[in-house]
Amino acid sequence: MASTGSGFWSFGSEDGSGDPENPSTARAWCQVAQKFTGGIGNKLCALLYGDAEKPMETSNEKETQGSTDKKTVCTCNQKPCSCLKMDLNYACLHSTDLLPACNGEEATLSFLQDVMDILLQYVVKSFDRSTKVIDFHYPNELLQEHNWELADQPQTLEEILSNCRTTLKYAIKTGHPRYFNQLSTGLDMVGLAADWLTSTANTNMFTYEIAPVFVLLEYVTLRKMREIIGWPGGSGDGIFSPGGAISNMYAMLIARFKMFPEVKEKGMAAIPRLVAFTSEHSHFSVKKGAAALGVGTDSVILIKCDERGKMIPSDLERRIVEVKQKGFVPFFVSATAGTTVYGAFDPLLAIADICKKYKIWMHVDAAWGGGLLMSRKHKWKLNGVERANSVTWNPHKMMGVPLQCSALLVREEGLMQSCNQMHASYLFQQDKHYDLSYDTGDKALQCGRHVDVFKLWLMWRAKGTTGFEAQIDKCLELAEYLYNLIKNREGYEMVFDGKPQHTNVCFWYIPPSLRHLEDKEERMSRLLKVAPVIKARMMEYGTTMVSYQPLGDKVNFFRMVISNPAATHQDIDFLIEEIERLGQDL
Amino acid sequence: MASTGSGFWSFGSEDGSGDPENPSTARAWCQVAQKFTGGIGNKLCALLYGDAEKPMETSNEKETQGSTDKKTVCTCNQKPCSCLKMDLNYACLHSTDLLPACNGEEATLSFLQDVMDILLQYVVKSFDRSTKVIDFHYPNELLQEHNWELADQPQTLEEILSNCRTTLKYAIKTGHPRYFNQLSTGLDMVGLAADWLTSTANTNMFTYEIAPVFVLLEYVTLRKMREIIGWPGGSGDGIFSPGGAISNMYAMLIARFKMFPEVKEKGMAAIPRLVAFTSEHSHFSVKKGAAALGVGTDSVILIKCDERGKMIPSDLERRIVEVKQKGFVPFFVSATAGTTVYGAFDPLLAIADICKKYKIWMHVDAAWGGGLLMSRKHKWKLNGVERANSVTWNPHKMMGVPLQCSALLVREEGLMQSCNQMHASYLFQQDKHYDLSYDTGDKALQCGRHVDVFKLWLMWRAKGTTGFEAQIDKCLELAEYLYNLIKNREGYEMVFDGKPQHTNVCFWYIPPSLRHLEDKEERMSRLLKVAPVIKARMMEYGTTMVSYQPLGDKVNFFRMVISNPAATHQDIDFLIEEIERLGQDL
Repeated sequence: MASTGSGFWSFGSEDGSGDPENPSTARAWCQVAQKFTGGIGNKLCALLYGDAEKPMETSNEKETQGSTDKKTVCTCNQKPCSCLKMDLNYACLHSTDLLPACNGEEATLSFLQDVMDILLQYVVKSFDRSTKVIDFHYPNELLQEHNWELADQPQTLEEILSNCRTTLKYAIKTGHPRYFNQLSTGLDMVGLAADWLTSTANTNMFTYEIAPVFVLLEYVTLRKMREIIGWPGGSGDGIFSPGGAISNMYAMLIARFKMFPEVKEKGMAAIPRLVAFTSEHSHFSVKKGAAALGVGTDSVILIKCDERGKMIPSDLERRIVEVKQKGFVPFFVSATAGTTVYGAFDPLLAIADICKKYKIWMHVDAAWGGGLLMSRKHKWKLNGVERANSVTWNPHKMMGVPLQCSALLVREEGLMQSCNQMHASYLFQQDKHYDLSYDTGDKALQCGRHVDVFKLWLMWRAKGTTGFEAQIDKCLELAEYLYNLIKNREGYEMVFDGKPQHTNVCFWYIPPSLRHLEDKEERMSRLLKVAPVIKARMMEYGTTMVSYQPLGDKVNFFRMVISNPAATHQDIDFLIEEIERLGQDL
Repeated sequence: MASTGSGFWSFGSEDGSGDPENPSTARAWCQVAQKFTGGIGNKLCALLYGDAEKPMETSNEKETQGSTDKKTVCTCNQKPCSCLKMDLNYACLHSTDLLPACNGEEATLSFLQDVMDILLQYVVKSFDRSTKVIDFHYPNELLQEHNWELADQPQTLEEILSNCRTTLKYAIKTGHPRYFNQLSTGLDMVGLAADWLTSTANTNMFTYEIAPVFVLLEYVTLRKMREIIGWPGGSGDGIFSPGGAISNMYAMLIARFKMFPEVKEKGMAAIPRLVAFTSEHSHFSVKKGAAALGVGTDSVILIKCDERGKMIPSDLERRIVEVKQKGFVPFFVSATAGTTVYGAFDPLLAIADICKKYKIWMHVDAAWGGGLLMSRKHKWKLNGVERANSVTWNPHKMMGVPLQCSALLVREEGLMQSCNQMHASYLFQQDKHYDLSYDTGDKALQCGRHVDVFKLWLMWRAKGTTGFEAQIDKCLELAEYLYNLIKNREGYEMVFDGKPQHTNVCFWYIPPSLRHLEDKEERMSRLLKVAPVIKARMMEYGTTMVSYQPLGDKVNFFRMVISNPAATHQDIDFLIEEIERLGQDL
């Protein structure tokens, strides 16, 4: 076995790193190693990792050789040495050799540590500006270049490690300082550690019985978020849900129940026709929720926005009155704090007044903008949020918490429970020996619910509120820097005037050939192709990623957003240079 | 700094392990260590870990000392030695010292490796029968014993590591061979590795652009699951959703849309009154979904079950006819393959005939039972599933995939997309440079969607279909072993007769004092308290955990389920002995 390769000690490994200076040093190493117990080796391995950086970078291509994951035989004594476990050959091991297998502990720890090696390399590379954001391949290429199929027979652990490397090779480095593509970017080290812990604890949120700490942390964290929203003493209710769309759907569901509790049993047939309101710049999930809940998308009225993308309150009131005149029931207004494209904040105070006047549930979709509540400098943009009946706030966006982490906060306590509970006796036994108020599962739409709170909680402990504030302020400062950089720069046009309120900066890049084109129609028809081509080239070069889209009568423009604390002024400069490099010939 | 403790090299660490034999050995170690680069140290550390097992066990209490996470100074040369990074003192470091901080790489790797140490210790302990399943504390105790609050100021990395230890100290060891409390138990090593990788990749499922590999793996995996269900060539559609309840809600949503596509725009007001059917033993999520979708829980008719918990088809047909006579529209039948309490399989073939006859969407909730499709021995229990229009199948239950992993499979392709799409141009640009059919986000109810597929895919690669089969067959064999052990044992009564079809074994333990009690009413009123008391004692001792509940007119009984491949015959024996030990005085 050893003579064909793949010993446990791989002194010349597939990632190109790690040849010892000579076999006798390795032999000395082995001898010393055997005298130690405990966690020292782990410290050492982290230390050695620091040194491994250079070879990792240069072996970019070699790392992911599909299933040809060869390990070199231990050469520390030219033949099998006396190291413990030197015969641990992944090419001959399978998952059945890992725990809970009898004597599976060594193989398990070794395997998991090797996985961790791969992950740590990826983490380090994610922050390295000399690496690509993406190694782009077309879907069919990617399907054909590797065998991804699921078979009857098991693969070896060597192949499994290779699968991990291959998967990461083609993954987007979402933590890369030049990845600006989504509202969720960045890779927080404490958040990552917390997510690994969450996976290891592998439990479910429905009862205190099976998730004691996590249930309490959800309680503590939601209360803190409600305090920050401005509800007295942090009172109210809430839940971590699988994303902002579901949080918004929860809000609509609860609003309907509050007005017509009989809908739970009798359905929509028993109640008047309901109408919801949101701005034309709002997130599509409001309509998606309305479709799902049986309200219907036609009953979601899109309120006009001003040129900055903010809902116009007078239009909201006009439409509410219209709807009432038709005999329908306005039940739900979803204001947006931080729209997806423009980053606009609806005027919450004015909207709150209207909701109060007409007795309509006020929801604030602050999935994207909620993070600004952590900043003393920027929180005024959400003035009035404390008057909402419910708020969606996604820490996985502006606060940089790993995906997924979305909270729905509800001002009235108990409503979620009444709305959603089904009293399943097999899950929520009423005669348990502890305080049942911590069994929160019955207020959820879900039965099992993933533990999303721990990464937010641990990051909050690690940063403090002030740490989140600093990171958010920095991102907003970078957005202003970008705005100032391009607002008067040749070849750029802003999609809307004025400084960005959030980190969204929307602009067209006008290639030289279009700059003096007089025919407006031709200009438009050529301009709409510019952003998609630049984006495609960005992805093929893999240097950076930024989103584009059309909106209303505005043809494709770039929407820059900054939520990654790793980004710097130089990265903003780079983006602009890259757009110009890739777009100047268009 | 070094003189007050907490050097990077901790030769006497808080977990009680790791003193080297003498300082000169340590010095030799340091000298050798400096000559190596690359991943060798990681191999070594895994190796050393194996040796660390004993001290870890004995230091059970010492590990979690709240925030008193002291590290001992490096003693390898009686004063600071020449090791790299020896001055890395977590008590003085914060998250801002980690990447992306300038020069944050060493601290990051060291910190993440230390987190990994904590997790690996937890993993090893999870499988150790001499450790507790749970270190139970009442909610108020747990809230008071530690400070869990979120503050303005940051904590040190030392405190963060301590937070991690404390969290795991009170966590349930859901992978423990004696944890039988839920349908999801066990901790699969490859699944865990895959979940760590998923966290590290930290992306979102909506487009190929930002999750190229994961989107393809979802495609491959869902197709394979549909093949196994028996749909020709694996054709059809599907999605991984955040749990079985949401999968079931998807099914109802799509069924409604298929029959009345106008409901999407017009809402429930525009269509006739709909009625859904499911058995009285079905999961409560069917009702929860009906409440959310505006169908109403009164419009979910619960069909009678036989004494084994299987839906009675003749009752289904009778109720369908009744509903039609009232002028309502039967639109959805949710059959259950593996009920939550009894583990019963509804007769799918007979139900399929009825659905066909009355043109009703047939859904199979195989969240719990779907895993049996992987077993040649047991898959007959789902005969007829291939005739369903949709199937919920949760690999996070019987297949032991880490939470969350739930699939909804739909026979008709394209329906999910038509039902849910909202054409948000800012997310699903139509002029991108690759095949857009891989942008699956618009068929989801969610916008962002967590990557749930990778752990299932990697486990499948590692085990092969045959590996899943072996693990599932073993759990079913254990359930039969339990059944045979107690069916004629003194002090036990089965809740229903006959061998279990799934791994659910439902029984009462009758303490000696009740065994000869003639007054049936008194017996019942005392029996209903037995299971809760035994369960409370189990949790306080922390030795094992099993669920109990009442059902209909049956007072509290134990529902044993086995989904953890780590469980053995001895663990079943232990459970029974423990029930008797804890319940004999009642």
